[in-house]
Amino acid sequence: MTQFGKHLEKGLRDLGREACWRAIKDAGIRSDQIQAGFCGNALGGYLQRENGIGQSVLWQVGIKGIPIINIENACASGSSAFREAWIGVASGLYDVVIAFGVEKTVMKKGAMLDVGDADLEVKIGDVFPGLFAMRAQRHMYEYGTTLEQMAKISVKNHRNGCLNPYSQYQKEFTTDEVLNSPMIADPLTLFSCCPNSDGAAAAIVATKEVAKKLSAKPVKVLASVLGTGLYNNKKDMAIFDLDFKLSKEAYEMAGVGPEDIDLAEVHDAFTIAELMHYEGLGFCKVGEGGRLIDDDKTEIGGKIPVSPSGGLLSKGHPVGASGVAQIAEIVWHLRGEAGLRQVANARIGLAHIMGGGKEGDVGACTIHILEKVNEF
Amino acid sequence: MTQFGKHLEKGLRDLGREACWRAIKDAGIRSDQIQAGFCGNALGGYLQRENGIGQSVLWQVGIKGIPIINIENACASGSSAFREAWIGVASGLYDVVIAFGVEKTVMKKGAMLDVGDADLEVKIGDVFPGLFAMRAQRHMYEYGTTLEQMAKISVKNHRNGCLNPYSQYQKEFTTDEVLNSPMIADPLTLFSCCPNSDGAAAAIVATKEVAKKLSAKPVKVLASVLGTGLYNNKKDMAIFDLDFKLSKEAYEMAGVGPEDIDLAEVHDAFTIAELMHYEGLGFCKVGEGGRLIDDDKTEIGGKIPVSPSGGLLSKGHPVGASGVAQIAEIVWHLRGEAGLRQVANARIGLAHIMGGGKEGDVGACTIHILEKVNEF
Repeated sequence: MTQFGKHLEKGLRDLGREACWRAIKDAGIRSDQIQAGFCGNALGGYLQRENGIGQSVLWQVGIKGIPIINIENACASGSSAFREAWIGVASGLYDVVIAFGVEKTVMKKGAMLDVGDADLEVKIGDVFPGLFAMRAQRHMYEYGTTLEQMAKISVKNHRNGCLNPYSQYQKEFTTDEVLNSPMIADPLTLFSCCPNSDGAAAAIVATKEVAKKLSAKPVKVLASVLGTGLYNNKKDMAIFDLDFKLSKEAYEMAGVGPEDIDLAEVHDAFTIAELMHYEGLGFCKVGEGGRLIDDDKTEIGGKIPVSPSGGLLSKGHPVGASGVAQIAEIVWHLRGEAGLRQVANARIGLAHIMGGGKEGDVGACTIHILEKVNEF
Repeated sequence: MTQFGKHLEKGLRDLGREACWRAIKDAGIRSDQIQAGFCGNALGGYLQRENGIGQSVLWQVGIKGIPIINIENACASGSSAFREAWIGVASGLYDVVIAFGVEKTVMKKGAMLDVGDADLEVKIGDVFPGLFAMRAQRHMYEYGTTLEQMAKISVKNHRNGCLNPYSQYQKEFTTDEVLNSPMIADPLTLFSCCPNSDGAAAAIVATKEVAKKLSAKPVKVLASVLGTGLYNNKKDMAIFDLDFKLSKEAYEMAGVGPEDIDLAEVHDAFTIAELMHYEGLGFCKVGEGGRLIDDDKTEIGGKIPVSPSGGLLSKGHPVGASGVAQIAEIVWHLRGEAGLRQVANARIGLAHIMGGGKEGDVGACTIHILEKVNEF
């Protein structure tokens, strides 16, 4: 992946190229051996007025002629591209492919990222911070979740971000600093929300046979699931229905349970989101997310480390790139290459990301479960 | 598919919904039986500032919860979505899925569709009409292709369009009218270029087993190929390299040759493009495209009818929808449901579409070959 952050001087093609080169080099493969390309990008047409980004980026790293598609699935664009890559390889159609995500959402000073304003709901104020603030309010009401517990998630993730050279923010905050930062949507303050970011991330997906021949330490995809319908549980705003449904599906596909997960990267676009994902992914019971963070269980040294990379909150959230960056983070941990933030003896990791959609039963969510390969 | 044309009062969701409902009804399937969705859209973010269109459209026709992705591949967006749908089913991952394409490119009076201006080449004038005009000039120089031959392609396609109720234009033109219409990029006149259009098209893709149970007359996908690198043949501008490469691949996959094709829909965004595709797809030898049209071989009653729907030139070109609309047209002919424009005894049809990319070896092109199923 590239460094996440403000890259005012770099375009989508520059960032994408940088990430793809790194993945190609890491895999010890030649560009002309790659048989298909999958690009995740959510807002290139919207913000940069660019299309066909996958083809342009891959051409710059010597990948041409082959099938290439561009995939948009909001925050799950990169992970959806990774999933199509996985389907392409798992189906036997391809032996080795590249999946990458790239995005630039850092706005000029004073400009607002007004994504989604085609929806009436958004026009009248149901923007993302508001949407998650309502969930936070309801979770506090239902389960007694506290402001401090939510703030501790931001503190943890920013602390982890300090250990990650790719993180947009490398600065620690105290609980008080999070709570006293400017209010965005009650109870979510500025440091309870992820930033706008520029960046890219890439991954090489291959058959077992090809992976054997490459120099890198391979990681196996145990499960890849995608679903739609983020906000359809109108009866209970304190629960992400889709997390429960998709994690069940993913655990079944992988043949593991939540107790087997050694680390997870989740869609912590807001502190409350990470807390709700603890519950949705089965890391704790419903209503006990607050206690999980209080007990330091999701710290790097804890029972189930979550967002060791710093997560969206600290590492940053270049929308279409985030899903692939999560995969990269998990891979580094499973290989023992995560440096100061390494989760000890990590064997199985989970990446969860969701995004988009307010009107009706829309949006997208993916879950990937990856396993360290000890021997072939 | 929807009627192609100006739909100022309808949004992407309205058009997409209409096409998807028609496909669902045609297939005799229930929305809740569909296991995945693939949406092709090229310019929704760019022009309408909308994202996640696939999820929004499919939710409106009762399709929710399932995996849905949005695919952008310029003019090949819809056909790339169809191809991912085909991969999903052919791989065994899904039994029945929906693929659709939707677009709105009709501009307000006085506004110009300025797609691609992120590229230096486009900024300094290398817009699509210019790009194809250069090819026309070179083809005329190399092979003696005439203005009249190119104009006859527009005359033929507009005549076919009059027989297609879905066509944006239903008006015949004479060769003189085409030649004397306003000059766009010498030698391409206004009626030598396809219009901007709004519209949508959809298709249900299923396993043989599911298709057997449905009420519609099924059609088999014999080949589906996708490639990149539209304009990489700098040495010979009168040839589309990628057409030759991909059609060879598609014919091999299908186990048929160009002589077996009973009808074709091609990317006739400009008259010269259709003529060059005759050669690239093997319907005639290189340099003989002009003679093929002179000999009426590509008329509906000819040896190899091309663009019986009216093509992009007359039927219209709502970018992301066109690839799926071509599939729909082929299916109707193979079923004997194409009304006044029916190609008699059509058994095998070919759909070809390409688009995007000027800088370097980019862009996308797909070819699909479909066969009538007589019995299972």
